[in-house]
Amino acid sequence: MNEDIYEIDTASVSRGDGTRDLTLTDRWNTPLGKPNGGYILAAMLRGLGDELGAGDPLVASISYLASPETGAAELRTRALRRGRRVQTGTASLWEGERHVAEMTASFGDRGDGVSRELGTPPDLRPPGECIDPRGKGTPEGGLFDRVDYRIDQVPGFFLGTPSGDPTLMVWQRLRDGRAIDFPALAFLCDAYVPPVVELGDGFNSMTVQLTVHLHRLPSPGWIATRLTTRHVVNGFHEEDCELWDEDGNLLAQSRQLGILL
Amino acid sequence: MNEDIYEIDTASVSRGDGTRDLTLTDRWNTPLGKPNGGYILAAMLRGLGDELGAGDPLVASISYLASPETGAAELRTRALRRGRRVQTGTASLWEGERHVAEMTASFGDRGDGVSRELGTPPDLRPPGECIDPRGKGTPEGGLFDRVDYRIDQVPGFFLGTPSGDPTLMVWQRLRDGRAIDFPALAFLCDAYVPPVVELGDGFNSMTVQLTVHLHRLPSPGWIATRLTTRHVVNGFHEEDCELWDEDGNLLAQSRQLGILL
Repeated sequence: MNEDIYEIDTASVSRGDGTRDLTLTDRWNTPLGKPNGGYILAAMLRGLGDELGAGDPLVASISYLASPETGAAELRTRALRRGRRVQTGTASLWEGERHVAEMTASFGDRGDGVSRELGTPPDLRPPGECIDPRGKGTPEGGLFDRVDYRIDQVPGFFLGTPSGDPTLMVWQRLRDGRAIDFPALAFLCDAYVPPVVELGDGFNSMTVQLTVHLHRLPSPGWIATRLTTRHVVNGFHEEDCELWDEDGNLLAQSRQLGILL
Repeated sequence: MNEDIYEIDTASVSRGDGTRDLTLTDRWNTPLGKPNGGYILAAMLRGLGDELGAGDPLVASISYLASPETGAAELRTRALRRGRRVQTGTASLWEGERHVAEMTASFGDRGDGVSRELGTPPDLRPPGECIDPRGKGTPEGGLFDRVDYRIDQVPGFFLGTPSGDPTLMVWQRLRDGRAIDFPALAFLCDAYVPPVVELGDGFNSMTVQLTVHLHRLPSPGWIATRLTTRHVVNGFHEEDCELWDEDGNLLAQSRQLGILL
């Protein structure tokens, strides 16, 4: 039986005083050789939720303070408010003396309240008709072994011809179709390539802050992902992500502020 | 000479230990009789920036924990990291024993890095050709005396005929054209009416979390504001706001998660 690497690598163990121990593995590294920010967010969100014993996560915002390393880390959690509909807490990620990230998240029980959808899922062919990009110019190893991707067409960036339009659309799932929970949705908002690479000029990006709204869990299958940057101002840029399931339901949306490198 | 109410009401005084004293006045109350969330955000952002002595605010995210009251309040600030390009801190707003709001914000010096704009300003007639909605069915007093508004047309909601499209566009400025700083931009992202009212059914909304990206200060004049809700899921909804100056420059964008009431 295969190991459940997602389960193992996002787990943390409570000391009973609000602090939790975890290990950041190298299995979610970006091509820069550091743990992916979405992976860190998923581990922190899962740890804070376990610690608070609250409802499902509704919204989380994380500030990345210092470059993370693989290895032992400490999650220091604190409940801020336990309301009837919403519970909120914070979690600080420390590696030794380095404060690596700070997250605030709210949890709650989704009721049967009203739903109205005015957005539309990404315009992608069905996953079965798409390309598996593995071995076709996309990065390999680390993060890119933890996620299965399916793409309509190989992005211009990978062919050396950036399109000029910083929008990327991709089907994603955890490797081998591992089931998706809310922390995994938060991860998948930051698990591909920053669309700003399509602007050319060798742009790459470092995330300062990322906020994710978590709406619902997917039906089984692939997750249609739309990543887009509309605004680049004085070397800073926003990046929006939406995740939709195969039935056309919005699962999550995120926005991050990045610095161009 | 007129008092500078924005300056007075967002000010806080340092005790020298990271804690600051401030007073939430009733001059920014919403029609529900509570201080507006954007006003609270502006006061907290200004206080944290003063305390850190950091660069201009780049991004702030706030969680509203309990219903705020007017009166004396305490801002407890903490520096998290002073990096070369970005400085980050948190601020907690307390009223007596009640923890009202928690904010994390990053500051930095904008350089002369690259800018690319792929968005477009709201499609509004020039402010001089628009309607002053004061006395035409919009709420009055409190918040609505602190901001000047100009609208193309009176929103359906105010006429008892919600349009069904939860998008509102409005010119805004601080009353009498008071100059805009970054905390004022954060305020103006949450200073009008939630567009979700245009869905009908008497929808109103309470903010759980709001994140604002601050890009640049405006040229003098009015600020074109686009407010829109695209996704309502099980009684929760997102709301996006963009602010643009009269020269067509993006100033700020925000996203909030709200609960329908």
